[in-house]
Amino acid sequence: MVGNTFGYLFRVTTWGESHGRAVGCVVDGCPAGLELSERDIQREVDRRRPKSAISTSRREKDEVIILSGIFEGKTLGTPISMLVYNKDVDSKPYEEIKHLFRPGHADYTYQAKFGLRDWRGGGRASGRETVARVMAGAIAKKILERFGMKVVGFAREICGVRCDVNPSDFDLDELSRLIESNPVRCPDGDVAKRMEEEILKARDEGDSVGGIAEVVARGVPAGLGEPVFMKLDAYIAFALMGVPAVKGVEIGAGFRVARMRGSECNDQIVLRDGRIRFETNNAGGILGGISNGEDIVVRVAIKPTPSISKPQKTVNWVDMVEDEIVVKGRHDPCIVPRAIPVLEAMVALVLVDCMMMQGLIPRFLG
Amino acid sequence: MVGNTFGYLFRVTTWGESHGRAVGCVVDGCPAGLELSERDIQREVDRRRPKSAISTSRREKDEVIILSGIFEGKTLGTPISMLVYNKDVDSKPYEEIKHLFRPGHADYTYQAKFGLRDWRGGGRASGRETVARVMAGAIAKKILERFGMKVVGFAREICGVRCDVNPSDFDLDELSRLIESNPVRCPDGDVAKRMEEEILKARDEGDSVGGIAEVVARGVPAGLGEPVFMKLDAYIAFALMGVPAVKGVEIGAGFRVARMRGSECNDQIVLRDGRIRFETNNAGGILGGISNGEDIVVRVAIKPTPSISKPQKTVNWVDMVEDEIVVKGRHDPCIVPRAIPVLEAMVALVLVDCMMMQGLIPRFLG
Amino acid sequence: MVGNTFGYLFRVTTWGESHGRAVGCVVDGCPAGLELSERDIQREVDRRRPKSAISTSRREKDEVIILSGIFEGKTLGTPISMLVYNKDVDSKPYEEIKHLFRPGHADYTYQAKFGLRDWRGGGRASGRETVARVMAGAIAKKILERFGMKVVGFAREICGVRCDVNPSDFDLDELSRLIESNPVRCPDGDVAKRMEEEILKARDEGDSVGGIAEVVARGVPAGLGEPVFMKLDAYIAFALMGVPAVKGVEIGAGFRVARMRGSECNDQIVLRDGRIRFETNNAGGILGGISNGEDIVVRVAIKPTPSISKPQKTVNWVDMVEDEIVVKGRHDPCIVPRAIPVLEAMVALVLVDCMMMQGLIPRFLG
Amino acid sequence: MVGNTFGYLFRVTTWGESHGRAVGCVVDGCPAGLELSERDIQREVDRRRPKSAISTSRREKDEVIILSGIFEGKTLGTPISMLVYNKDVDSKPYEEIKHLFRPGHADYTYQAKFGLRDWRGGGRASGRETVARVMAGAIAKKILERFGMKVVGFAREICGVRCDVNPSDFDLDELSRLIESNPVRCPDGDVAKRMEEEILKARDEGDSVGGIAEVVARGVPAGLGEPVFMKLDAYIAFALMGVPAVKGVEIGAGFRVARMRGSECNDQIVLRDGRIRFETNNAGGILGGISNGEDIVVRVAIKPTPSISKPQKTVNWVDMVEDEIVVKGRHDPCIVPRAIPVLEAMVALVLVDCMMMQGLIPRFLG
Repeated sequence: MVGNTFGYLFRVTTWGESHGRAVGCVVDGCPAGLELSERDIQREVDRRRPKSAISTSRREKDEVIILSGIFEGKTLGTPISMLVYNKDVDSKPYEEIKHLFRPGHADYTYQAKFGLRDWRGGGRASGRETVARVMAGAIAKKILERFGMKVVGFAREICGVRCDVNPSDFDLDELSRLIESNPVRCPDGDVAKRMEEEILKARDEGDSVGGIAEVVARGVPAGLGEPVFMKLDAYIAFALMGVPAVKGVEIGAGFRVARMRGSECNDQIVLRDGRIRFETNNAGGILGGISNGEDIVVRVAIKPTPSISKPQKTVNWVDMVEDEIVVKGRHDPCIVPRAIPVLEAMVALVLVDCMMMQGLIPRFLG
Repeated sequence: MVGNTFGYLFRVTTWGESHGRAVGCVVDGCPAGLELSERDIQREVDRRRPKSAISTSRREKDEVIILSGIFEGKTLGTPISMLVYNKDVDSKPYEEIKHLFRPGHADYTYQAKFGLRDWRGGGRASGRETVARVMAGAIAKKILERFGMKVVGFAREICGVRCDVNPSDFDLDELSRLIESNPVRCPDGDVAKRMEEEILKARDEGDSVGGIAEVVARGVPAGLGEPVFMKLDAYIAFALMGVPAVKGVEIGAGFRVARMRGSECNDQIVLRDGRIRFETNNAGGILGGISNGEDIVVRVAIKPTPSISKPQKTVNWVDMVEDEIVVKGRHDPCIVPRAIPVLEAMVALVLVDCMMMQGLIPRFLG
Repeated sequence: MVGNTFGYLFRVTTWGESHGRAVGCVVDGCPAGLELSERDIQREVDRRRPKSAISTSRREKDEVIILSGIFEGKTLGTPISMLVYNKDVDSKPYEEIKHLFRPGHADYTYQAKFGLRDWRGGGRASGRETVARVMAGAIAKKILERFGMKVVGFAREICGVRCDVNPSDFDLDELSRLIESNPVRCPDGDVAKRMEEEILKARDEGDSVGGIAEVVARGVPAGLGEPVFMKLDAYIAFALMGVPAVKGVEIGAGFRVARMRGSECNDQIVLRDGRIRFETNNAGGILGGISNGEDIVVRVAIKPTPSISKPQKTVNWVDMVEDEIVVKGRHDPCIVPRAIPVLEAMVALVLVDCMMMQGLIPRFLG
Repeated sequence: MVGNTFGYLFRVTTWGESHGRAVGCVVDGCPAGLELSERDIQREVDRRRPKSAISTSRREKDEVIILSGIFEGKTLGTPISMLVYNKDVDSKPYEEIKHLFRPGHADYTYQAKFGLRDWRGGGRASGRETVARVMAGAIAKKILERFGMKVVGFAREICGVRCDVNPSDFDLDELSRLIESNPVRCPDGDVAKRMEEEILKARDEGDSVGGIAEVVARGVPAGLGEPVFMKLDAYIAFALMGVPAVKGVEIGAGFRVARMRGSECNDQIVLRDGRIRFETNNAGGILGGISNGEDIVVRVAIKPTPSISKPQKTVNWVDMVEDEIVVKGRHDPCIVPRAIPVLEAMVALVLVDCMMMQGLIPRFLG
């Protein structure tokens, strides 16, 4: 249907099942003349790969291959087709439970929707699908960079352990460095350690944990977003709520506004260096669905990994009887750290698309 | 741009400024053969009208006029054009502050985006725009009713006063009756009274309050939603985050999942009456972006009305100097109650669209 | 469904049945800051009105009303809602034949598609629907004018009488003047007279005639069109084949290319005044689906008006028996002259949309 | 931009340059449960390959690889990613003329649009792009077959040699057999021979020839097409005018309607076997933009191959001086025969999409 294409002018179509031959995407609408190589994509894809004790033991090189759209090191303005092959695939654990719907997973709903499903590794519903988002997002990020914009995400909270860092106190490159310096992607090293401990504790108990990720975009010009339906915040919410495991999205002060008064919530408008600015950023950089020039700040709630080794109730849909399931396979006990590059990618895709709709990116980046 | 059309197969295009001649919409893709009259639309529009001390004193009859798409009492399958005229309009209070950007409003961002703006009553960024959403939603609701589905919203929390009602304990018609029995639209009458008191207190202090609204959809078949981007939850988040004043959206357990473990968060799968069901509903009726047959449960955070009579800092953009503003005009001190029919409308639009994409609504409702 | 919206960035949604209350449209994506009044729209709508013996006797003032999107004489960048009321409506002749499908009309196919239809005056399938296209096209033309572009259509052939004028020999304003000086819209006055005679002759015999219209767009920059599917020629063909009664579309040399050799068909490339130009224009201004800077030249075949007073075979679909029909009502014996403003409008809509996609029209026309 | 995706519910996104690594496509919206293998796709791709003296000497195996969307021999309802590698590539002849714009080609217009271009073999503008259309069309054809529909194309005229066969006299399988029995794809063997002679004669003179292809779709139910803009004829015109080298599209009687009277052009409505039928088919199976149950009949004008070895005038765009060009490389002297599978594919894509929009194809083909 229309489900696998994202974006209006900068458009990404993704494809691929977790245990199929490959996963990939086609990016249409990329401006011509952008210097782009497989290395640019690889860098972001590598960030998404599992890398420590807190991640799955599925280890794939995920080598990015670009098949079209680049000529002599530059984008042609034609579709960019990219893929990574699925190499370290082990479908055996799934074979055994293929008649059972895994709780917290999309097994039942895919079956209900399509009448059949690829039960190997979650098929299309697997988190592996997000590799393609990251590939496309890498291009988006490169374009944003040309226009002085940067998108950075981090773990705001994991398993109740909360990080109190205020991104607006940091240069984003510096923040980035801090975030990438530990496996949970939390900029506060001490907090990161405690998060990691909680994750490992849950894992050792055959369980998993949830958390909150925050994404900040800086350098975004005022004027992005298309009211009244494709508002910038609505578009971001669409982009992020569609990332696997996300159950909530909030902008700026988010759910805290529910307990505020108007006099507290309204960001006062001032002049700084001759430009319109806001004293606070409860709006998260968006007013009336349009960017106001301040940092875009968004947070998402990420549920605990549904694949746990504790026994759970389920149904055998072939025999239509109740049963019990123990999910094996290789899984991250916490999705937050590896979700962060995906969330950044989605925000970057939205921003490039909105920049184009606002007419701020030419067809040729000479 | 693309901003004023919502939906893929069931499509709504809205138009109109707050103090322009009228606001309205065109609904394209409505199945033929649906009995429909202006009364059906009027009923929902009336629910959105201000009606008590807690609302604006702008009082418009908002008489719905249908201009096309209906013949002999039935839809033709052609576009349905509808409007209400703007009658009780007073632009004077806006004239005085037209050079000042109102904090918390879209004045600055519209100016930044379009280079000019209709400063009368917020123009296109006014909440008045939502009348058109409600008109379209009324048609969507009528279609859903034909397929045994119902969408009901209520005030879950206002100004810190929280209602603990569990909608799954209620028949939705009964819940509806309770909700409509008080001006704040909270199903618990005692809580409703306390909410109202808080709203009036804030109003008397020249201030405003925020809150949380919840929307429940019942009777939704499993299988709706289009992964991997137009997932049902992503689509709902898109729809609701674009409603004026919404700063957060969560599905099912929402942000609470951040502190859950997998063993707690996963809804156990069981058989009831021979059908696949879930013991709990932390998923809010959606797994992998596809409905699972349980109630769709979604909550939104609504910020306090930005129009307050307390003095605020702002900038006069003609002279580019800092200034102070006191916002007059007629405003609701709390948006939650009147937002509820709008939120219901948006959820209904999403559900009809997803039903169509899933092939569950024929072109002719004979 | 998706049928009533045209355009990708400059989007028009039309609505209305021939004998309903009104017909109208919503234009979304119009840049802000464009000076626009009802007079601008009225001028084009008036060109579409019947005005002589060769036209229907249905005479409506067709007074254009703009309901939104304009403030202080300029576009706001928000949707522009426009309509004309249906005033001179006489449904009686249709009442008598409502159980008969009129040959050459969409009566049967609408019934087959939607299960019911508005039999009054053809309902949505009536040529009256094109008023809305002309209204939207008037805005598109005004935008094109700002960028030095002009779109002019004329009768190239009616009932076998052919006009040999070569538009490239004319200034388009001059050509326009000649075209508007006679009721058939043929730039050659003598040919126009013969065309008119043929039309009247057919009318007197209770019959109707077909013809060919040509549309020329000048000042179109090289680079418009979005390969490989939304090529400029493909987009124009889409736009024009959807105009009622059109059965063929050709670009440049069109069907004549079938009998050419490559050495004759290829337009030789030369330099004139330091710019790339083409010695001939068999390409009709489009190569590889992208404009090449020469005149866009397109022709459409228009079938004879299907409403004729000669007896025709048909079927009474209520009783499902064969029958005979004589179509009364008020009809143009030849559609070509009145179709021309509609065809121009469609080409103008395509060009504005492609200009926007190419990034050549800013969001604010300051 | 939006150029490389075709379709609304059944969506194809194509990618690839002529001398890049591969060409391919992603098909989104294919119903689940369809039996599909690489063989199904290969069969159609093979039909597009050059095979005789009248074709280019570029000979590629064009082996179809499916990367996703199939599981245990059936479609999953998820995106189907397919490709063929470019193997027999020789870019040398293009290197020599990379500073010259080839007349009749898109060299200049791509440069004007994108600021740079892949000059090897025409890059994205090459006819090689159409392999991806044929791959997607193969799936569409397989779906249509399930619903009793078939699409067949043939050479109606080449270089002035015209074939007078009336497809309605034939069973389409029989017609297909006749068409595939000769290299020009004309169902009349004698005419085919004369066409072939004309093609070879032109080739020997370093020239090329044009022609007319006709496509017939049978078994199409009444009711397809989405007025008023996405009418079936408009959609077909969009699909076919976007095929490389097409300069005209006509439906049914096409341009002949220009010289008809209404009494001749209107297809009389009759009952046959209790069903509504039409005595003639000047409408080409489409009335008011909606299919009427008769054969869909469409013809396109195809220009002579622009690559000819005769010297032509052109411009060296690096030095901006006039020059002369002789196009080498390997080219078909007539595009018509190899275009036919492409045209069929496009019509099939349109029909499947319209079937889906009309709700006639379920999400699961059990």
